[in-house]
Amino acid sequence: MTTKPVFDAITLPHPLPLDSGEALDGVSIAYETYGELAPDKSNAILLCHALTGDQYVASEHPVTGKPGWWERMVGPGKPIDTDRFHVICANVVGSCMGSTGPASDAPDGKPYAMRFPVLTIRDMVRGLIGLLDVLEIEQLHTVVGGSMGGMQALSLAANFPERASRILAIATTARHSAQNIAFHEVGRQAIMADPNWAEGNYYASGKTPDAGLAVARMAAHITYLSEAGLTDKFGRRLQDRAEKTFGFDADFQVESYLRYQGSGFTRRFDANSYLYITRAMDYFDLAEEHAKDGQEGLLADAFAGTNARFCVISFDSDWLYPTAESRHVVHALNAAGAPVSFVELSAPFGHDSFLLDVPELDRVVKGFIE
Amino acid sequence: MTTKPVFDAITLPHPLPLDSGEALDGVSIAYETYGELAPDKSNAILLCHALTGDQYVASEHPVTGKPGWWERMVGPGKPIDTDRFHVICANVVGSCMGSTGPASDAPDGKPYAMRFPVLTIRDMVRGLIGLLDVLEIEQLHTVVGGSMGGMQALSLAANFPERASRILAIATTARHSAQNIAFHEVGRQAIMADPNWAEGNYYASGKTPDAGLAVARMAAHITYLSEAGLTDKFGRRLQDRAEKTFGFDADFQVESYLRYQGSGFTRRFDANSYLYITRAMDYFDLAEEHAKDGQEGLLADAFAGTNARFCVISFDSDWLYPTAESRHVVHALNAAGAPVSFVELSAPFGHDSFLLDVPELDRVVKGFIE
Repeated sequence: MTTKPVFDAITLPHPLPLDSGEALDGVSIAYETYGELAPDKSNAILLCHALTGDQYVASEHPVTGKPGWWERMVGPGKPIDTDRFHVICANVVGSCMGSTGPASDAPDGKPYAMRFPVLTIRDMVRGLIGLLDVLEIEQLHTVVGGSMGGMQALSLAANFPERASRILAIATTARHSAQNIAFHEVGRQAIMADPNWAEGNYYASGKTPDAGLAVARMAAHITYLSEAGLTDKFGRRLQDRAEKTFGFDADFQVESYLRYQGSGFTRRFDANSYLYITRAMDYFDLAEEHAKDGQEGLLADAFAGTNARFCVISFDSDWLYPTAESRHVVHALNAAGAPVSFVELSAPFGHDSFLLDVPELDRVVKGFIE
Repeated sequence: MTTKPVFDAITLPHPLPLDSGEALDGVSIAYETYGELAPDKSNAILLCHALTGDQYVASEHPVTGKPGWWERMVGPGKPIDTDRFHVICANVVGSCMGSTGPASDAPDGKPYAMRFPVLTIRDMVRGLIGLLDVLEIEQLHTVVGGSMGGMQALSLAANFPERASRILAIATTARHSAQNIAFHEVGRQAIMADPNWAEGNYYASGKTPDAGLAVARMAAHITYLSEAGLTDKFGRRLQDRAEKTFGFDADFQVESYLRYQGSGFTRRFDANSYLYITRAMDYFDLAEEHAKDGQEGLLADAFAGTNARFCVISFDSDWLYPTAESRHVVHALNAAGAPVSFVELSAPFGHDSFLLDVPELDRVVKGFIE
């Protein structure tokens, strides 16, 4: 039976403890659900979103009016079948679509801005666990996530092993590489270089750091696509003109596309949230998190307590989180004795493949959660 | 016999014709030379610099005080041996180290700024040919260039085939790809987003768009290094601290390094020059330049008139201009019947390998110009 999506938000009943040592009080978590929860609560799937994603996984985005970001995967009869499963997708803490983040009011009634505590991926997962507690869901059927969503899925498996029986991690990594950090740092510097950023205190001014945020998005967007994919899609084709203009307009289609991606993004995302979430991703190193006695951490140790089944999927054209990173996770799971299936799929779209038309991905996802 | 470097500048006696259809009058070309020109002028080597390079190839940079950018390659007894060769290196038109560029005064006595005409790589080469004419050097022994310098070397071979008997093109391409254009567009947007840029009219204000230019440099710098090189050099190591600070300082060494690269660059480079030179590189497509009758250009046609010998070198870790781009050039030279040797060198440094310690590169360069 198909049910309409339910949009809701809860406030965590306890302060959220953070890796920084701080605790965040009065945390709201905005989420949506699809499909009915079985009486024995055995059919709940938690979907974790990526850096700039949100809870609108399979319903119209309230700001952009665009379809949900994973409509092709989630819905009645889709690979993640909402006729069978109760799908939960929550906006992560630190983001800007209803969950508590830097744009939210602090206890003094003013936006947190840069007073918001720096979060980690594990802190985001703590927020999700808090939501599951409120919803009284003891154990998830599956946790699914791509990109930063996959980091959350792996973190949940490592830190709350009793809360999920299946973990599906797509196009992701157990640690941010130097290159990953470098690209994020460019984005952060672009935002902070925008005078409208004003040390993060732009909420009352009416002047948001759109120019800096757009540049950050443009730089990041290149990393989501493959070189071959960009060449196929745009090559050196010109935008609505027969000749180069010998100027600085967007002569090339790829320039026009990037500008559009950058400016569109500023209409739906908070620049401070972008700073905080990229920071959380850069801090992510699941092995280090589970290091003992000052020794270098072993990723296998992170998964020592797990009883879940794992499925790890990478894409051959993904140079942001390349297959080697997935293989690293799989080797650690092997060492930890966890059952894991691993597949590298061939797709031309780079990192964004997990969001796009890759029929083989649909089949693997469907097969794993059967 | 070793001679000291000679720094000089000439003014072209004729207006420089440009691909845009415009012509630039009173063009100055600043250059340096090493080694003595043989009486028969048979030993002249033209070195072409990269995007942010300059004529200070093997002598201290007057702004930074750092050694020349190719000291390891050029000098007495070095692979490009100034005891034997007369080496010429000129600042390209459009740049900011003495040759005419956007920071130069226009005929009205005010800086050109964005009134400077948009140039192409071929226009830069026209400037270099103008310099050779003034120096009365009919035919070069060799033209050498890496990255954008390689584009100039290939363009010179295609457009002025009688002016050089050997062409050495390193870590370069015959056309800018969609991904190449995309990264440059991010840099340009970062500069133009800086309020100090002021539509390019910042020369009199004393406020230069350093923040935007630094972000542009940071984004570009990532593309000059390999993912593995960044991991080797920095990994996830922290900068002068034992623990993450849970803040937005440069916790990671790679962040600190990038910020240093960005801010250092702004002290020696003009933001408008960065706009113009990246534009020239994006416009570069040697095949398209030689297209006939509205047909898609064939790169082999660009080299139809050449009698030079070619050497093309790529690096296996260069993802900016990967080996496939060099191979594309080599196939075109083969089709044009030009003698060409081609080698892909193994080096961990990414695109920057051509500037760094790769002994095999020294041997190939030395061997080719013997």
